[in-house]
Amino acid sequence: MLIGIDLGGTNVRAAVVTRKGEVVEKAQRPTDAEGGPTKVVDNIVAVVKEAMERAGVGNGAIIAGAVGAPGPMNWQTGVVYSPPNLPGWKDVPLAEMVTSRLGFTVYVDNDANAACYGEFWSGAARDVDSCVMLTLGTGVGGGIVVEGRLLRGIDGTAAEIGHMCVARGGRLCNCGAHGCLEQYASVSGLVRTAADGIKDGRQTVLTERAGGDLENLTGKMISDAAQEGDAFAQWVIEETGRWLGVGIGSLINLLNPEMVILYGGMTAAGDMLFTPVRDMALAQAFEVPGKRAQIVTASLGDDAGVIGAAGCALQRAER
Amino acid sequence: MLIGIDLGGTNVRAAVVTRKGEVVEKAQRPTDAEGGPTKVVDNIVAVVKEAMERAGVGNGAIIAGAVGAPGPMNWQTGVVYSPPNLPGWKDVPLAEMVTSRLGFTVYVDNDANAACYGEFWSGAARDVDSCVMLTLGTGVGGGIVVEGRLLRGIDGTAAEIGHMCVARGGRLCNCGAHGCLEQYASVSGLVRTAADGIKDGRQTVLTERAGGDLENLTGKMISDAAQEGDAFAQWVIEETGRWLGVGIGSLINLLNPEMVILYGGMTAAGDMLFTPVRDMALAQAFEVPGKRAQIVTASLGDDAGVIGAAGCALQRAER
Repeated sequence: MLIGIDLGGTNVRAAVVTRKGEVVEKAQRPTDAEGGPTKVVDNIVAVVKEAMERAGVGNGAIIAGAVGAPGPMNWQTGVVYSPPNLPGWKDVPLAEMVTSRLGFTVYVDNDANAACYGEFWSGAARDVDSCVMLTLGTGVGGGIVVEGRLLRGIDGTAAEIGHMCVARGGRLCNCGAHGCLEQYASVSGLVRTAADGIKDGRQTVLTERAGGDLENLTGKMISDAAQEGDAFAQWVIEETGRWLGVGIGSLINLLNPEMVILYGGMTAAGDMLFTPVRDMALAQAFEVPGKRAQIVTASLGDDAGVIGAAGCALQRAER
Repeated sequence: MLIGIDLGGTNVRAAVVTRKGEVVEKAQRPTDAEGGPTKVVDNIVAVVKEAMERAGVGNGAIIAGAVGAPGPMNWQTGVVYSPPNLPGWKDVPLAEMVTSRLGFTVYVDNDANAACYGEFWSGAARDVDSCVMLTLGTGVGGGIVVEGRLLRGIDGTAAEIGHMCVARGGRLCNCGAHGCLEQYASVSGLVRTAADGIKDGRQTVLTERAGGDLENLTGKMISDAAQEGDAFAQWVIEETGRWLGVGIGSLINLLNPEMVILYGGMTAAGDMLFTPVRDMALAQAFEVPGKRAQIVTASLGDDAGVIGAAGCALQRAER
């Protein structure tokens, strides 16, 4: 058995997972991020023990575990530097702390990489050998699997798909660069595209719903308006899809993957998002790799993180 | 011993290479591309035999060979489809033809991938484990090495670095897409940036040198004018460097490589090109991977192709 842990800013989840990537039991509790590293480690330990009790397994049955944690980090030493959504963390030796408390080896990996590996191991990409995953949230995260292995890079910072430049000199990104994919294809990018259009005088129900302050606009407002038939809101979602397609076209030309997986609430928009994504990706990519790459929705939902962390643990324990 | 073959549209080169990536002897002759596949294979066989005679080695000493050939191709079957600069070629079983004529196994690999592998194996990147190479010519080609292995992709079409989109809706590329890096960072892109500036009324000696027809502009004219102190020509080279830096910044965020290698006549511009390349790459990339990636000139010159092909042959024979 393996232990997969998904450490988010709000909740921490743990699961007991088989060597084949099936979840036996799982548990969840609040992260209590404001309690600092010691409190968070307490919660990690508690949630793992809870999942293990439910599954009826003791330490003897565990090969290893891994935490998918927000970066930046050193995945080899298991030290987490200072993630924006874990306040007060500074160079925390997370792998060491959790390992000594649990009594079996626990590795640390980047959360987006772990989720990608989960989809690769037992989700949407389980029948292929290479894939790219884009997680569409406040930002755009990602993971890359090549020939069955996570592409982590020499410092473990690879697969920052949200920070490919798709428009030189374009929108300023939180990272300090300009024109990053994240500024167009994340939920924040979606909202910004809507706000820009409204400022330019486009007619939409969103103007009223924002109550005179475009700061109030949310992704949910836009998707609701689009579902109700608001033409501008639909255009915003399609335009976001075209930006995503531009980035995906580049990824296809660079990596020639078998599959591109999209994850996040935004994918609920369905064809309204996926049709422009696929059209633009095909227009930007070469024909052979463009036709090869299936562009699909993630299939594991919130379990991708725990399953993927367990898969990373297995791969690292076996190496 | 290994045999490395570099099949270009103009010349075909062959070398006898040691298992450590050192060239023992080499030979070169015209490709005679217009003679069609049979004539080209005759020339490949002749040039290999010439190199082997010079080195004083017979077939018994050869582990394997490989041809670095222009794509598109299937590197696994060794069939070359229809490369733009090998007229009359259509689904040519190159590996099979050369193998049967030479009497030892000869593989086929993409030429840009082979050159990248050459620099990785025994050139600029010989002391690192991962690198990205950009070949700056009429287009922008490339190769990617991750954890010591070429990243070829499922169809062998990966590493088309020239066809990352750096400007959505930008210049139309020969591939049919818009805003490809190649349209800004190749020699053709350099010339186009100069022509656009001249049309916009920028003052430069290039206007006169083109003799009233901007179609006459060449990369050499621009670099000569820049060396002579023409401010506009210098700006054109710097601007080309900034475009390159945008693409390299994205590659660094995606792949977190130890080294980025630039190859091609354009690199003779030295700091005039490299300073804006490095400045822009650092501005676009995250700090840790940005500082990590050394951006350097290729070190093997024209030998990268034959050495890299030999290295690919060794790796494939040993697998």
